[in-house]
Amino acid sequence: MVGSVALDSVKTVYGRTERALGGSAVHFSMSASQFAPVKLVGVVGEDFPANFRRFMNRRNICLKGMQVMPGKTFHWKGRYDRGLKNAVTIATHLNVFEYFKPKLSDTHSACGVLFLANIDPDLQWDVLGQMDKPRFVACDTMNYWISLKKKSLVKLLSKVNLLFVNEEEARQLTKEHNLIKAARLIAGMGPQIIVIKRGDSGSMLFYGGEVISMPARPIEKVVDPTGAGDTFAGGFMGYLAASPDWRNFNVLKRAMAYGTVMSSFSVEDFSVKRVGKLSKADMHDRYNKYVKSLSIQ
Amino acid sequence: MVGSVALDSVKTVYGRTERALGGSAVHFSMSASQFAPVKLVGVVGEDFPANFRRFMNRRNICLKGMQVMPGKTFHWKGRYDRGLKNAVTIATHLNVFEYFKPKLSDTHSACGVLFLANIDPDLQWDVLGQMDKPRFVACDTMNYWISLKKKSLVKLLSKVNLLFVNEEEARQLTKEHNLIKAARLIAGMGPQIIVIKRGDSGSMLFYGGEVISMPARPIEKVVDPTGAGDTFAGGFMGYLAASPDWRNFNVLKRAMAYGTVMSSFSVEDFSVKRVGKLSKADMHDRYNKYVKSLSIQ
Repeated sequence: MVGSVALDSVKTVYGRTERALGGSAVHFSMSASQFAPVKLVGVVGEDFPANFRRFMNRRNICLKGMQVMPGKTFHWKGRYDRGLKNAVTIATHLNVFEYFKPKLSDTHSACGVLFLANIDPDLQWDVLGQMDKPRFVACDTMNYWISLKKKSLVKLLSKVNLLFVNEEEARQLTKEHNLIKAARLIAGMGPQIIVIKRGDSGSMLFYGGEVISMPARPIEKVVDPTGAGDTFAGGFMGYLAASPDWRNFNVLKRAMAYGTVMSSFSVEDFSVKRVGKLSKADMHDRYNKYVKSLSIQ
Repeated sequence: MVGSVALDSVKTVYGRTERALGGSAVHFSMSASQFAPVKLVGVVGEDFPANFRRFMNRRNICLKGMQVMPGKTFHWKGRYDRGLKNAVTIATHLNVFEYFKPKLSDTHSACGVLFLANIDPDLQWDVLGQMDKPRFVACDTMNYWISLKKKSLVKLLSKVNLLFVNEEEARQLTKEHNLIKAARLIAGMGPQIIVIKRGDSGSMLFYGGEVISMPARPIEKVVDPTGAGDTFAGGFMGYLAASPDWRNFNVLKRAMAYGTVMSSFSVEDFSVKRVGKLSKADMHDRYNKYVKSLSIQ
């Protein structure tokens, strides 16, 4: 997987955190590594704490592709309103991330499954070009790239198996309000699978002309929603990477459910605290209860 | 069931309708009568079209409790924005509905199941007092009554088994943003069951300390969302009325799923057009597909 590694300062109604471990690459990897080994490709500055590195290494995440550059690590500062839905950015310091130009080693290029987190679509394309015939490629994106680099993004989409987007991004990309129609338009651009993330409204899976909607797992105390989408993608992709064949509706539905469950843990504490101490037993327990809650006898 | 019968003029991006059959009593009854016979208690004016009366009679709805008063039928005129989520009221003419004071006959009082649609909580209380030991009572309400007659509403809630509310009403009633906590506070007011309707984000069921979240059934062409909530309640209550015991989680989950499916038909056309011509076969077919889509093997 390729994405951002960040130090996040976040404030919500439940408290705050300063320069905590964050970024799409971190949230994704912490989640995906519950299912399969993850090789993270990213960049940090010289200020990146050694204990964060050890923390991730302990979770089955290979950091050989996490380059250290002179300067400071990407830093994001933000807060959430009472509803915990919309992030307000107070400051974004790209720092070394501004010069991020991923170079894959042979071990990285040989990976069978690739996740391109939300970065410049030209960089995503460049990374994909360095890969040696991966069997499954997924990407994420955001409103910023849809506005500024739509052409590059559309070119990339013709080469990926799966796109993760949220509701508004799906609408912005297709100029279509209805999500079923929007997903059909995106499928026409290339991806066989489209996953629309809808926050506490759940998620939708589009594959083979079919649509499946799944609810979010209700959470009584949402402490910090930062990284929930990447944690969802991590659970989904990790499960898929560990499955023999992704061309199977049941596999995709289980991947959706694991993504849902992983993101439900993620929001229960700041940064990757909850996912970082999550046991496989707790994960499977919540998964089984979620699946049972959806089973109508 | 007791509620409003209206003539609705609605405009959406897909077209418009003039003085079409509407009101909570109509949407609820058209949906519930797919499962069980319904006795409607309401009021109309002398202008109420005879063909609307025949239309409902044909659908297993008894209209002996639909009083005709001198004057005009309740008329609502509104439109929806592009997202089809928020109704903008252009005009509300209460007409005869302003003087609505339901009087139940012995046949009505003897009903085992009662649904009190969204009307003045003092009237809901009055109707409940006229009933002869119903085995199950549910009610709906709205922001207007929560603001103006909270005391009356809270008194009513101590006597009902189930409350249907939407997200914002649940929050307004309890001053609690989190829906799990809000439902717990409402349960403390009396209802054993709370159903929170969330539009295209699905619905949540609270019963016996447990919470179940269900997704909306994705719809490609939402023509008119008017009455979707009452249609949901109708499917839920109709299914429950036809079941031997409501104190059963599986029965309640099936009721939720039927409510979801009925409301998904409702929004596909104006007024009660789609539900009015719905066959039992089409209903069960969509129900079975919905249940299957949620089954994760």
